Amino acid sequence: MDQVNYPDDLKKIPKDKLPQFCDELRQYVIEVISQHPGHFAATLGVIELTVALHYVYNTPYDQIVFDVGHQAYAHKILTGRKEMFETLRTLHGLSPFPNRDESDYDAFTVGHASTSISSALGLAVAAAKLGHQGQHVISVIGDGAMTGGMAFEALNNAGIQKSNLLVILNDNHMAIDQNSGALNDYLLDITTSKTYNRVKKDVWDTLGKFETLMPRARNFISKVESGIKHVVLKRSNFFEGLGIRYFGPVDGHDVIRLAEVINEMKDIQGPKLLHVLTKKGKGYKFAEDNQTEWHATSAAFDIETGKKVASAPSTAMGPKYQEVFGITLTELADSNPDIMGVSPAMLSGCSMNIMAAKYPGRVFDVGIAEEHAVTFSAGMAAQGLLPYCNIYSTFMQRAYDQIVHDVCLPRLHVVLCLDRAGIVGADGATHQGAFDISYLRHIPNLIVAAPMDEVELRNMLYTAQYIDGPIAIRYPRGNGHNPDWKKPFQKMEIGRGRMVCDGSDIAIVSVGTIGYEVQQAIKMLEAHDIHPAHFDMRYIKPLDTDMMQQILSRFGKIITVEDNALQGGFGSAVLEYCADNGYAPKICRLGIPDRFIEHGTPQDLYRICGYDRDAIANKVREMLA
Amino acid sequence: MDQVNYPDDLKKIPKDKLPQFCDELRQYVIEVISQHPGHFAATLGVIELTVALHYVYNTPYDQIVFDVGHQAYAHKILTGRKEMFETLRTLHGLSPFPNRDESDYDAFTVGHASTSISSALGLAVAAAKLGHQGQHVISVIGDGAMTGGMAFEALNNAGIQKSNLLVILNDNHMAIDQNSGALNDYLLDITTSKTYNRVKKDVWDTLGKFETLMPRARNFISKVESGIKHVVLKRSNFFEGLGIRYFGPVDGHDVIRLAEVINEMKDIQGPKLLHVLTKKGKGYKFAEDNQTEWHATSAAFDIETGKKVASAPSTAMGPKYQEVFGITLTELADSNPDIMGVSPAMLSGCSMNIMAAKYPGRVFDVGIAEEHAVTFSAGMAAQGLLPYCNIYSTFMQRAYDQIVHDVCLPRLHVVLCLDRAGIVGADGATHQGAFDISYLRHIPNLIVAAPMDEVELRNMLYTAQYIDGPIAIRYPRGNGHNPDWKKPFQKMEIGRGRMVCDGSDIAIVSVGTIGYEVQQAIKMLEAHDIHPAHFDMRYIKPLDTDMMQQILSRFGKIITVEDNALQGGFGSAVLEYCADNGYAPKICRLGIPDRFIEHGTPQDLYRICGYDRDAIANKVREMLA
Repeated sequence: MDQVNYPDDLKKIPKDKLPQFCDELRQYVIEVISQHPGHFAATLGVIELTVALHYVYNTPYDQIVFDVGHQAYAHKILTGRKEMFETLRTLHGLSPFPNRDESDYDAFTVGHASTSISSALGLAVAAAKLGHQGQHVISVIGDGAMTGGMAFEALNNAGIQKSNLLVILNDNHMAIDQNSGALNDYLLDITTSKTYNRVKKDVWDTLGKFETLMPRARNFISKVESGIKHVVLKRSNFFEGLGIRYFGPVDGHDVIRLAEVINEMKDIQGPKLLHVLTKKGKGYKFAEDNQTEWHATSAAFDIETGKKVASAPSTAMGPKYQEVFGITLTELADSNPDIMGVSPAMLSGCSMNIMAAKYPGRVFDVGIAEEHAVTFSAGMAAQGLLPYCNIYSTFMQRAYDQIVHDVCLPRLHVVLCLDRAGIVGADGATHQGAFDISYLRHIPNLIVAAPMDEVELRNMLYTAQYIDGPIAIRYPRGNGHNPDWKKPFQKMEIGRGRMVCDGSDIAIVSVGTIGYEVQQAIKMLEAHDIHPAHFDMRYIKPLDTDMMQQILSRFGKIITVEDNALQGGFGSAVLEYCADNGYAPKICRLGIPDRFIEHGTPQDLYRICGYDRDAIANKVREMLA
Repeated sequence: MDQVNYPDDLKKIPKDKLPQFCDELRQYVIEVISQHPGHFAATLGVIELTVALHYVYNTPYDQIVFDVGHQAYAHKILTGRKEMFETLRTLHGLSPFPNRDESDYDAFTVGHASTSISSALGLAVAAAKLGHQGQHVISVIGDGAMTGGMAFEALNNAGIQKSNLLVILNDNHMAIDQNSGALNDYLLDITTSKTYNRVKKDVWDTLGKFETLMPRARNFISKVESGIKHVVLKRSNFFEGLGIRYFGPVDGHDVIRLAEVINEMKDIQGPKLLHVLTKKGKGYKFAEDNQTEWHATSAAFDIETGKKVASAPSTAMGPKYQEVFGITLTELADSNPDIMGVSPAMLSGCSMNIMAAKYPGRVFDVGIAEEHAVTFSAGMAAQGLLPYCNIYSTFMQRAYDQIVHDVCLPRLHVVLCLDRAGIVGADGATHQGAFDISYLRHIPNLIVAAPMDEVELRNMLYTAQYIDGPIAIRYPRGNGHNPDWKKPFQKMEIGRGRMVCDGSDIAIVSVGTIGYEVQQAIKMLEAHDIHPAHFDMRYIKPLDTDMMQQILSRFGKIITVEDNALQGGFGSAVLEYCADNGYAPKICRLGIPDRFIEHGTPQDLYRICGYDRDAIANKVREMLA
């Protein structure tokens, strides 16, 4: 392990020593992640697969695309990044996911699910067009990501392209939660040979009818069983139906056999799929036993006991916003039988598992399928049910068209809940919820809301029942600041903001939980006898025009603050209002600048983006100077 | 035919008279469309299916969702809209697609492809939850739309939901162009029994080995053929693999048999699919022979000859923008071998068929699969090819996440070409390209361009070769105004606008072809001695800051004009620039207001939206008053 820094080092290991190397690599991953939180169980499941791939293929010339990429830690360690591995997910450290800018060994930048077959097919087609001799292209995709529509689109296209693409289906029957959908059942069916057994039974029964006609028919057929088995399994295969040659299933933890199989497949032309069975969390008992909990770790843990090492408790911290959502939704469902929950493979991530435990028949985990999740919700709403569809802000990007076309155009009463909106921190550029205000604000008929705290989130979820059309509610990852959040429900008038504190000379107008940073800035400024007013607009759309008029009639200097891209965001809505209504105040907009924001702590990233408490206070001073 | 206005009337027809009724209905559709252009071949293909559905089901209580909806004209005629049918696609007339606001018989609002299984599953789940006794839900989806990823996501979910959903696969092997993809091959395979024949051959060969062991094995197996056939076909079915019971294929033009089959299937519980074989354009020879050309008609035609009735030629008209794209792309491909073309099932719609005819190996029709189209392009770009990926503005909404995550984050050199941007006219609310400037402008690393005329489009496509990152070029449906457009290529500096005409007192700043309306407005105003300056910014992003400074230093009154939503659009970019740089001019933004814009002629819709030449001229007068 000490001597392996690159695939070339790995290739020097005799094949029979690979299992031992895998054990060492696995222990190394466990040790580092026990100290440096990150994605965990997925990488443990593909240790052998990753080693086999780099053992057999000539990377980086050969191109391996990991789907999602949270399983690619071992890949990073084996491709020159072992020394930096402890910096993973920290500011200026290694990216949480494969990233073309970080390493030539990362053939494609990833983070969202289900992209790898499309990109790998592009790489493979290009390899042929550009005459890249002997260049292999491999997509490594989990059974969870395989349910995403674009994976199917790519398979459908790959099946006619005849490119030398190898898709490795890493089948562990899990997304973050247990995988869900007919394809999952189908894969389970293949691996347990249920289909074959059923076919055999059907053939058997059929032949039974001929027993009288021809004695010993069954006796005969048992002799041709292996031939029939081969034919039936091959033809009945889902992937073969799409023109992709299917191989497997093979044991994903037998590294020697894996390397042999992959090596043999190198010479097979055309699109092909290797079905590899793995166990998420393999080799670490606690993770094997509870794969969802150990999908990612949020704190250091003790390797022996699996217990999290408690970090110093933060005294004033409120609950996680996702828990406010999950608990509140369940309360609302208690009294409103029309409420349904819809989530694309993120039940525990958004805490909808709380409602699912109480009302299993009213919560739908549709698999990794954001597009379907939104339009399925729209269908339910068209009949009069009230779906709350929860999708992380960054993944809701997948359903932008469905929001426009299937929800907002027909004005259906769907409550779109965007968890992880704004800066998300350690998950980095692919996962920041940086754009939702900008991509939602221009959609007609849609209300767009952002609570400043837990109580507002709770009341917005409550209020969303009493409108007649679509609404989007965005709120961040992480904890709030209000332990006493579970107050009686109150309706929050749509399009009505509130003054958080009055002041003079300058107004700070914010939406969302970033208002907390504004409050901290104001505390700092008040110590210097500067007293900005602060308005929490609550709704980006419709904007509270009465409040805007009040603000504009009193203040000539305004700072807008949002945890969203500055282009087309909340601040732009304020500018549009001013221009359309003849106001010309001095307006400074704070928010995410026009670049992708990498990983780091949210506080670091607020600072880098220029809208943490210090930046806000400085901007106030600057404008008043 | 005269006596049938609603499904209840249809149900009075004796079953044996249905074929005659279908003939009359088909003739009626042909006659009306011959005078009133619209979608044509798709409806002719589903006359019998539509009649059978309304004959058997109790609509509107039973819910029929037509995917896309361009095949739903017969449905409209049979559901109370015969009298209005001639107003189809015209201002304030019938919608081009099914629309919940138009009729209770339209169970879901449609227009984009591949949504119907998701929405129908939502309707079906809701029917069960709400106790809608005996309510049937049917999705009617073409084999073209079936390749869209969200259709697969929905099937994957339907297979585990056990809802009483019937999916009718209307299989004509066509999208607008010939359908493409492995699923298409698969469906062809089922319908021609190729798979069965191959299986039979394989079994036959296998048994041959046993001939010596047991004479007459083959003789025996031929006797069990029907049993084997049943077993193998059932098990090898793609849809059965996803947990959907498969029935068919049946002849989609035998209305009596269709009605019987559909009626029998009413009692089958759970998700099920009926495979119906139809011919696009059925019953009108010219459309049967050239299905792509007759997908939609753009002018009246003579029924006997199939010839378009020439409308009065417009003297100053230029080419269609799509032709400028198609011809120019082919020219560029002549001299740049890295250029590839990618289109999701819109080769002829965007005129990429011109390049495909000359360079078939360099053009990829990936089927209806916008997400895959963009990420597949990104994969090619990652290897150094230069893909031009052309998707209509409204359908590019499907690939928003892929643009953010797979193209712009890794700064890949992909040329995104957005045809049909802005108001599209008769196709209405689902098809207006109203939002692309707003949904693209906030994406980091992306250049967003909009040519004012054919020459600019041509030069932007040319210039796009010489940058190092992603670019989006948006241009409208319809014809330009410059017959003399095919000029030598010129590079257009990125982020550089131009002054179209100088003037005084007020500046009009536009992007895109709507600049033509600005020019017409200025002509009108000059007759009254009003002389606005006009700037064509060409690039929404990066905005030409030098030119903005010039404009702002000279003009205190500015009108922005764009063929895009006002929220977050080009005008907002101008507001943002002014606010960020301390300018406070009076700015009036003209563009698409915050509502969905229905069908009508583009000129009507410009007027209704308030940015046709008259509105622009009036706004100039108002601001100068």
